[in-house]
Formats: sequence, structure tokens, C-alpha cells
Amino acid sequence: MILFYSDYLEGAHPRILERLVETNMMQTPGYGEDPVCEEAKDIVRSVCRAGNADVHFLVGGTQTNATVISSVLKPYQGVLCASSGHINVHETGAIEHSGHKVLPLAAENGKIKACQIREAMEQHFQDPSAEHIVQPGMVYISFPTELGTIYSKEELTEIKEACSDWEVPLFIDGARLGYGLEASDCNLLLKDIAEFADVFYIGGTKQGALFGEAVVICNDNLKKDFRYNIKQNGGMLAKGRLLGIQFKALLEDGLYFKLARKADRQAERISEAFRAKGYGFLIENHTNQVFPILPEEVEKDLSRDFGFEFWQKIDEHHNAVRFCTSWATSDEAVDQLISRI
Amino acid sequence: MILFYSDYLEGAHPRILERLVETNMMQTPGYGEDPVCEEAKDIVRSVCRAGNADVHFLVGGTQTNATVISSVLKPYQGVLCASSGHINVHETGAIEHSGHKVLPLAAENGKIKACQIREAMEQHFQDPSAEHIVQPGMVYISFPTELGTIYSKEELTEIKEACSDWEVPLFIDGARLGYGLEASDCNLLLKDIAEFADVFYIGGTKQGALFGEAVVICNDNLKKDFRYNIKQNGGMLAKGRLLGIQFKALLEDGLYFKLARKADRQAERISEAFRAKGYGFLIENHTNQVFPILPEEVEKDLSRDFGFEFWQKIDEHHNAVRFCTSWATSDEAVDQLISRI
Amino acid sequence: MILFYSDYLEGAHPRILERLVETNMMQTPGYGEDPVCEEAKDIVRSVCRAGNADVHFLVGGTQTNATVISSVLKPYQGVLCASSGHINVHETGAIEHSGHKVLPLAAENGKIKACQIREAMEQHFQDPSAEHIVQPGMVYISFPTELGTIYSKEELTEIKEACSDWEVPLFIDGARLGYGLEASDCNLLLKDIAEFADVFYIGGTKQGALFGEAVVICNDNLKKDFRYNIKQNGGMLAKGRLLGIQFKALLEDGLYFKLARKADRQAERISEAFRAKGYGFLIENHTNQVFPILPEEVEKDLSRDFGFEFWQKIDEHHNAVRFCTSWATSDEAVDQLISRI
Amino acid sequence: MILFYSDYLEGAHPRILERLVETNMMQTPGYGEDPVCEEAKDIVRSVCRAGNADVHFLVGGTQTNATVISSVLKPYQGVLCASSGHINVHETGAIEHSGHKVLPLAAENGKIKACQIREAMEQHFQDPSAEHIVQPGMVYISFPTELGTIYSKEELTEIKEACSDWEVPLFIDGARLGYGLEASDCNLLLKDIAEFADVFYIGGTKQGALFGEAVVICNDNLKKDFRYNIKQNGGMLAKGRLLGIQFKALLEDGLYFKLARKADRQAERISEAFRAKGYGFLIENHTNQVFPILPEEVEKDLSRDFGFEFWQKIDEHHNAVRFCTSWATSDEAVDQLISRI
Repeated sequence: MILFYSDYLEGAHPRILERLVETNMMQTPGYGEDPVCEEAKDIVRSVCRAGNADVHFLVGGTQTNATVISSVLKPYQGVLCASSGHINVHETGAIEHSGHKVLPLAAENGKIKACQIREAMEQHFQDPSAEHIVQPGMVYISFPTELGTIYSKEELTEIKEACSDWEVPLFIDGARLGYGLEASDCNLLLKDIAEFADVFYIGGTKQGALFGEAVVICNDNLKKDFRYNIKQNGGMLAKGRLLGIQFKALLEDGLYFKLARKADRQAERISEAFRAKGYGFLIENHTNQVFPILPEEVEKDLSRDFGFEFWQKIDEHHNAVRFCTSWATSDEAVDQLISRI
Repeated sequence: MILFYSDYLEGAHPRILERLVETNMMQTPGYGEDPVCEEAKDIVRSVCRAGNADVHFLVGGTQTNATVISSVLKPYQGVLCASSGHINVHETGAIEHSGHKVLPLAAENGKIKACQIREAMEQHFQDPSAEHIVQPGMVYISFPTELGTIYSKEELTEIKEACSDWEVPLFIDGARLGYGLEASDCNLLLKDIAEFADVFYIGGTKQGALFGEAVVICNDNLKKDFRYNIKQNGGMLAKGRLLGIQFKALLEDGLYFKLARKADRQAERISEAFRAKGYGFLIENHTNQVFPILPEEVEKDLSRDFGFEFWQKIDEHHNAVRFCTSWATSDEAVDQLISRI
Repeated sequence: MILFYSDYLEGAHPRILERLVETNMMQTPGYGEDPVCEEAKDIVRSVCRAGNADVHFLVGGTQTNATVISSVLKPYQGVLCASSGHINVHETGAIEHSGHKVLPLAAENGKIKACQIREAMEQHFQDPSAEHIVQPGMVYISFPTELGTIYSKEELTEIKEACSDWEVPLFIDGARLGYGLEASDCNLLLKDIAEFADVFYIGGTKQGALFGEAVVICNDNLKKDFRYNIKQNGGMLAKGRLLGIQFKALLEDGLYFKLARKADRQAERISEAFRAKGYGFLIENHTNQVFPILPEEVEKDLSRDFGFEFWQKIDEHHNAVRFCTSWATSDEAVDQLISRI
Repeated sequence: MILFYSDYLEGAHPRILERLVETNMMQTPGYGEDPVCEEAKDIVRSVCRAGNADVHFLVGGTQTNATVISSVLKPYQGVLCASSGHINVHETGAIEHSGHKVLPLAAENGKIKACQIREAMEQHFQDPSAEHIVQPGMVYISFPTELGTIYSKEELTEIKEACSDWEVPLFIDGARLGYGLEASDCNLLLKDIAEFADVFYIGGTKQGALFGEAVVICNDNLKKDFRYNIKQNGGMLAKGRLLGIQFKALLEDGLYFKLARKADRQAERISEAFRAKGYGFLIENHTNQVFPILPEEVEKDLSRDFGFEFWQKIDEHHNAVRFCTSWATSDEAVDQLISRI
């Protein structure tokens, strides 16, 4: 069986394991206050062209989302988010656990529009009963989205303007950031993300690290005492250097992007193979996720040798399924899949 | 410089790194639902002689404490704890962040007594204004304590009886569990811990793992839906098998205890060296922490070549300091330190 | 100006003020542990035909909802609720502030259906990723709804069955309970509410009291230590007897229902007057709220002498508006309004 | 039986009931946005000599404390407080329920000292592990304290300076503010309280109102969106004018202070009667609480005709007890008590 279930099936890129082995007996202070983390933070700032940003390394995505969002919002504020956003549907209410409502906006292919943000803000502040309603206090988007789609530079510019006009910070969940930036139809660079976002993160877990998310705080107002929040939310790794080592390995020479590009290309190959056979897609996208619509017998046949996820029923005889590539997907695995398609 | 600051200065025991390398390209489902985790859980149950226990792997201690405690308490309940307990002093209010008060009891050398638990419970339930006061809903102790001291089997029996009589669960924080069980004056076995505790954890981070804590839920009433709590608290590692691999490596043949024993013996050697020179100790204990009281000039002199922690001022010319050994402390490092003492 | 904005424009029914004056210098213990509260609780149990129920008096609706819901749910659970439910839209996130997600179901005229509850439960527990999703842990409905509509006995029976089958408690927000029970098309009695609900409340604030909501806990499992929850949520009135006095006055001889009936009839008169003039309605209902759709010039004209609420835009020239009657609405006020319609 | 248990045994000063009766059928908008509340707020500002302050009326003390404190603190911050402070011991963890740790300071007769605040702040910010510890983010004191003692102008000046130097707001719980200000040894005026406090409240519940606390926010930084916090915490009374009516009645011509002065004098009479008989006191104070130390037989004898509270055991044959006067305590009641002493 070759599995295309998700992008966290394997361990880490070999370079990371090598570095862990090399540095294993080094003695460093804990909690991310070691020289390797410092070096890794400098690299993050450098690749983001964000010299003044604060950088913090956390362990996982849910933890990162809850920590960032609860550090930004006032008690009576909530976070605007696509209805399909990870924080709204797949974090067991971690945001609500921190006391805040997630304010869902109708999503199209996982994306929201600047005009929806403006409408939500206007609607709130024009309501004579506003005080009885959760105040939208920030905007959360995922890049790429949970469905693998991406915002264009134009769309993100508009979203940022809406946020600026209404004075709410923009938080970009970059759990799969590399896969998004390396999509063939992406006209955004990492530095653009750092410019548009008040705070965002560069996902490691799904992109070649054992684990880890690098939070980049660009907006000065959000920087103060962030490490207290990390600790309180259980996200401060004792052997923090493990995170520094990994992000240094991934970002020092572009490995992170190279791996993402490769995964995106593998996904495109799979996509083209399905297209060539005349199958349609639930969503067209160019990151590491492919959502073909397959007749049930094809789905059943492929599932004998390949692992992939059932996504949703389309009609009586067709389902949309998901194939996910990653930094670890080999050419051979994709060749085998294509030959079977 | 040789550092004795803490027990999380280095990476992991080489066997763990080997296993990570070996299994790296294995494809497994995420979130701890893989065969390695299942195997590791069986090993945990087996070494604890707790065949019916539920086992869960989390990443770090603060996260584990907050997840366990908030899963047990009702909203109006708090947790009884030594005033020096980790949850009371060193977790940035993670317990309060989850809505619960920490109810400190005066600690002696980091320990509390059964009679203090009984008094607190009696005092609460006899108070005619009890409803206006946080209700003690569970008891938290650390084994060994934050000061390296340990409870005897007799003390723990009494604590357990007090908990049972008042129907409050006992939670044992075992961040350094091995160092405690291997202390030369310890008359408790792991199975005793599993028998006394309603829930406890076997700490990996400070005992040879890169990270990880194995929660063992012995009391059936506390088992339901615990994984929802883990996820909500941001403690469910995507590549969950990393935890399974580590605990399997540590526990399958007793490596965990062997490493702890070694560290405890190293600490004893250091302790004896100071004692031989006539220095006293803040606390006598036999785990991996040594707290000699040193004249300032000795402290200063040693600090040129060795890293250790200032602990507290004793008088004008003397400070108590802490030397911490770990699974990674070499004979040579200790030899050098002793020769300088 | 005669105001029909809401049902909390005036003070309290004169009988309540008389009783407050009569009992003013009585000395009683605080926090609802006085003889008047005991008597009032007995009356509540009696009118509900719920001899074993626990009764508690709280001050306001938002407080009551947050206290009840957070006392019932486990940390990872949320509450199913009509999308238009008060807790979802008009309590500034009080439920989320207590750590829980509100799980909205598409509402029709403010109501939800048993099948929606069943679907939500099935969908959750059949999802292989259920642990990553907030678990529905209880059901909240309002009777009457925020739009003045009511559930029939048949509908409530089905909802109760759905809740029982899935073992989730049913909570009925009765902020306007009397207006609902006295609606001309209501086939439910107070005792039915007490039978169907695991916990519900009889609203005082909008039905003739100065303030106050009487929580009735029918399900034994939800009774324990509820007063701790009240206190923690700031809902335990020091001079608790004020609540006992009011509910005794309202319920001892049926005044509560008489006042509600009168208000419902006043609303019907208003409704008929609009209907006679050929105006349609946003929603047809028989409680104390009327939602006519008016041409803008009529709306403007009426608003010179009468206060009523803009509700929503219907088309370019028509708006739905709300007229609200209450226990305090006089025949004369309604006569004047009707003569102007 | 004449009861001296507490200062919330009776209803309200007759003037308040008269006003409630007079205004009963008035129609006003809800939630404190009515003309009476506006007028009452102006009066509050005027008596406080705090023309720019924001004033809000809440229902009870626990609610007020939780709302104010959670509106001020960041998630990782706690509130410094006397160990005997109401928020630490008698609010069922309402502050922790909002996510924040109460940081107790050793209290002497219910009071804390400026130097304790300075020490706590220094200790926190000098700790190299500060990020692992709850950060003190504000200071809470009660005036008078829970034991009836008061701060002098000098003491309060020093406390304020400590707060200013460390940039933490000072919150004064004035549940019994009038009794404190009218104490014979008090050298503070209401305007001093308003000058020293960043936020404080004027307690109504224990001083002649049916219920109600008037929050005065003096510090501009704490004003924004406070009403959202009130609503979220369930403290926004639907018929908000009830609070305006009461505070107007109490404050428009000094009734509040007159009632407090009378109660303080009654307490002094009781105090002198005990002193004349040679009894000592647990605490000497001049507000409305008296804490004589009585031989058991005297205690028993008095308790046949008078209600008072057991406070604490002093020795085998003596207990300290509490007699509490209030705005409602009559001369006759005190005469009878004195004649029996």
C-alpha cells in the first residue's frame, strides 16, 4: 500500500534527522533561549524580509492558533474566519476554550472575500445592539486554505485593506504555507505574506519537519509578552532547540520551498493523470492536494493499492476523494499511482 | 564549561534517535492512532501492571497538567497542591487559564501530608459558606517533587486513603518519575504509583526522550473522551507515532529506569563530594538534584567551569545552589566536577 | 409617545412592589436561603407538577444561560441551538466566554426540528475525526423562540426523544415562557415543559417582575452543587429573598399566566388591526410579539406617536417591524395604536 | 430575635422603594441606556469629583469584580490581592473562572502594604523565569477591607505610587465604601478614592439599595467597550433603570453617607458597650463591623435573643464573633443589645 492520506504520514526530511543526531549531546538552555533558535529566528526574519519581526517556535497548529488568537483578542471579541476554516471545524473548540467565539463567514472553496469582512464589520458596528453581540476583533485566513486553494496577491491586498480600514489584525495560518507559495498559479512571495499579515506562521509539521510552527509577529502591537502566552498555552517546548534545529535546516538554503515545490508538482502529475482519463475535480488547485471525482468502481479499485481519503459524496455513483502529496512523496509512488489510473 | 543546570540540556538517548531514523519513511496515520503507539501503550500498561489503564502520549508537562486537571474538575472546583507545586508556580497560570483555582497547601520540602488534605476537605465542607468558596476537587502531587524529594510508600498510602475517603482523585505528576523510583531510599515501585494514582504520567522530556509524557488513566471514571481534551488543549501531535517510538524505546527493556538510576548515582557522587568537604545541604535527597549550601567564593570558583543554578540565599556569605544530573551526564563530567570540589 | 419596543420597558406588576414594601424591614439570611425563597420554590415545584425538581432563582437571562450551560457541558462539548437562538446572537459570547462553542442549526422561524438534532449527533459520532470536532453535549431551545413562535406538543415530544436517544440534556430557555404557554395555538402546559426539559427556566424579567429567572432542574444528574455554579457566575443575589418575593407573588395564584394571557391578547388585537388593513407579516405568531410588514410611509407615520422596533428590510419600500406587548400594556395604549392603524 | 449577621438582611431604604413605586409605569429603554441612569451617572461623577469618569451600574459584587478584573488583565496576568480579599476567598473562584490567577499577599487585618506590591513586582520581573510565572497585572484592595479596617490617606498614597511606578492599575472594591469613608478615623474623602483608583465601585447592596454596584472608571485606558464586558458577564440588567433610580436616590443629597455614618455610630455604641464590660476585640475598627472576643457563656447567652456570626476560635473558652450594623439598624435594636451586654 502506498498512502496519500495526508502530509504528515512520514517522519522528517533526512537533513533534519542528521542535524538532530549531530547536535544531540550539545548542552543548551531550554525553552527556546539557545543559540540555535536565535540563528533560526534570524533566518526566518531574513527569508521573510521582516527584519523587525518577532519569531517564536511552537509545536503544533491547534496550539499555535489558540495561542495567537487568544493573545490578540479582548474577552468580548471573536475571530472572523471562513466557515471551513480549521479553527472553526477541526480543533475541538480550542478557540472557544480560550473564551472566544469563532465568527464564520460563508466560504467559497475555502476562501473568504474582503467584502465579507467589510460587511461583517459594518453590520456589527451599525447594530444598535452591538454591545450584545460578539465584536469581530481579528481576521483568520489559511494560506493555502484547508481545500488547497490560494488567495491571489490582489485578493490578499483587498483583505488587508479591509482589515486596516477596520483596524483588525490579519492572522494567516500557514500550516501548509510552502505548498501554497510554490503553487504554479501563486503570485505571492513569502515577503508578501509577511507584509500583509499582522501575524502568521510557517508550518513545519506538514512540510518536512518532525513538528513545529514558526510564528512571525510583524505588528509591533502584538509582540509584547508573547512568550508568556506560549507558556500558558503549553506550547513552550523544554528542549526548544529541537525547533530551532529543524527550522534552520529547512530554511537556511531554501530546502523548505524546494520540498514544497516537489510535492506540488507531484500533485499536478496526479491531477493530470486523472484529467487525462476524463475525470472532473471537486476543486481545481495547484498545491499538494488533489480532489478528483471518481466513479465508485474506480475508487474501489484504486483503494486496493493506494490509501486516499473519502471527501464527499457527489451523486449516487460518484465521490470526491483526496490525494495528498508531501515533501516525502517519491516519484516512484506517483508513477505507480499514475500507471494504475 | 560543563552544565548541570537542568535535565533537559541535551537531546535524546541515542537509541531514540536511531529508532527515529529507522522508522522515518514509514507511513502511518496521524494523531497517535498508529501501530507503534498501540505497541507503546501496551508496554506502558505492562510495566505499570495496569492492564485496564488508558494510555495517552502528550508533548510536554504544562500541557499535560492543564489537560488532565481541566478534564477532571467541575467548573467550581480547584486542585489541592503543594505551594511549591509546578502548577502553582511555574506554568504561567495554565490551570487558571482553564478556569480553575490552584489551592496551595503549605509544603515541607516540596511535599504535602495526608492530614493536610483531610483538613482542607473538612474545612471546606464544614464551612456554612462552602458554596462561596472553591471546592477542592482533586489532589495534585509531584513524584519526585520539584525539590527532588520523594514520598514513601507509607506517606502515599495515607494520601491515597485521604483522597478515597473524600472521593477526590489523586493525580501524580511524574515529569521525573524514573529519578524518583530509582532513588536509593525509595520503597515504591511503578506499579504502586499506578495503584495509588487515579491518573499519573511517566515523564519522557527530562528522562531521555526528545519530548513526551505518557499519561496513564487508571480510574475508569476519568477515561471517557480524554482524546477530545488532548486535542482541545493543543496536545495531540500530528505525527503522534514520534511519541510511541520514544516511549517504546525507553520502556521496552527498562532503559528508562537504567538511565534514571545512573543519573541518581551521579547525583549521589556529587552530593558525597560536597559532604566530604563539610558542606551542608538545603535538602537531603537521592534523586537527580543536589542542593549544596556553598560559601560565595566556592560558588564563584566552581562557576568558572561548571554551570549550575543559584537556588536561594542562605545568609550573607552562603547560597544554596542546584546541580542537576540527567540520563546524559557522563562519568567524566562528574569526575571533573568532583575533582574541583 | 407610547412604546412597544420591548417587554421590559416598565417596572414590575404593582403586587410585587407592594410585597417588597411590606417585607422591606424583615430580616432574613442572604443568598436565597430564606423562608420566602423556600416558599417560592415550593410554589414553582407545585405549578410545574415537578415535586422533585431543584429550583434556583437567578437575576437575568444571559447569566442564567451561561450558568446552566457551563454547569452541564464537559470542556470539549458545545450546545446545539437555533442559529437565531439568544445564546448564539445576543449574549456577547457569554457561552464561549465559559469555554464552550455554540453549535448553530439552521432555524426556521426561530425553531429547530428533532431531525436536525439527530443529524447533528449522527454526523458527529460517525465522523472518523470526531475527536477533532466539538462534541454536541446538550440542546438549547427557546420557548417561545426569539421570534415569538412556539413548539407544538408533538414537536417537543420529538425533540425530547431525539435528545433521549442521544443522551443529551434538553434545556429550555423560558425568558418569555408565559407568553408562549398562553398563546392561543399552544397545546402545551407548564407541566409538559417540566416533563420534556432536563432543565428550564421561568422568566420573570419580561413577564411582570423587576428581574429574575426561576431555574427548574428536573434531571437529577444536573442538580449537584448548582449553587456553586450560580455563585461563580456572579448570579447569587445577596438579598436573594427579593427573587423569592417576586416569584411567589407571580405564581401563587396564577398572576403570571393571567398577565401573559392579557399581553398575548393585546398582541392579537394589534395583529388583527394590521391584517384588517391588508398588511402581511414576517412571521405569524400568537405570543406577545407582532411583526407586520409595512410600507415605509406607514412606518414613518406610526413612528411619530408610537415606539416600535425596525426588524428587517423586506424590499425597497417595505420593512418588517416589531411591536411588543407585555404584562404592562394597557387597553388604552392598544386602542390608540389600533385607531391609528 | 434581632439579627446582626450581616448588612444585607433587610430590603432597601424606604426612599428607594418610593421611587420604584413612583416610576414604575414609566417606559424607558433597557440595559441602562435610559435618562434616569444618565442622571445617576452624572451624580456619581459629581460626588466623586471625577467629571471624566465612566460610570456603569452592575447588580452584585462578585459579578462586578470578575467583570472589572477580566476586562483589565491580559490572559497571562493575575491580580495582586490581600490573602483575605473577597476575590481570593469568597467568590467561588469567579476570577479563576475568567482565566486569571489571584496572587495573594499576606494580609494584616485585611490590609496590604505598598512595599508588598513593590516586592511582588520586583520579584516577578527580576526572576529569570518570569515567563513561566503569572505576571501581576493589577492590584485589588477592598475599602474598607473584609474585616472592616480602612487604609489611611498615607497608606493609599503609597499604594498608588507603587502601582504607578510599576504601571499596574489599582482597583478598589467599595462594596462597603460608605461605611469606610464615614469611619471616625478615616482621613479619606470619596474624591480621594476616585483620584487613587484607576477603577473602583460604590457598593449599593450593603448600603441601603436593594442591590447594585456603581463602577467608576477613572483611567481612560480602561474605558473602551466596557459595556461589552458587562453583557458578556451577565451583569447588564434588562431593566437597567432600576439601578439608576437607586443610585440617584442614594447619592443625590448625601443619603448614602448619612446612612453609613449612622451605621458606623451604631457599631461604635456596640463596641463601647463591650469595651466597658472589659471585653477585648479581634480587630479594632470604626466601620460597621464589631469583632468582640467573648467568653463562651456570654456568647451563648447573647445568642438567645440576638443573631451574630461566629468568626474564629481564640482559645478554649473564648471566641471572636461579629456584629454587623447597617443602614437599617435601629436605635432600639442597638439599645436592646447594649442593655443585654
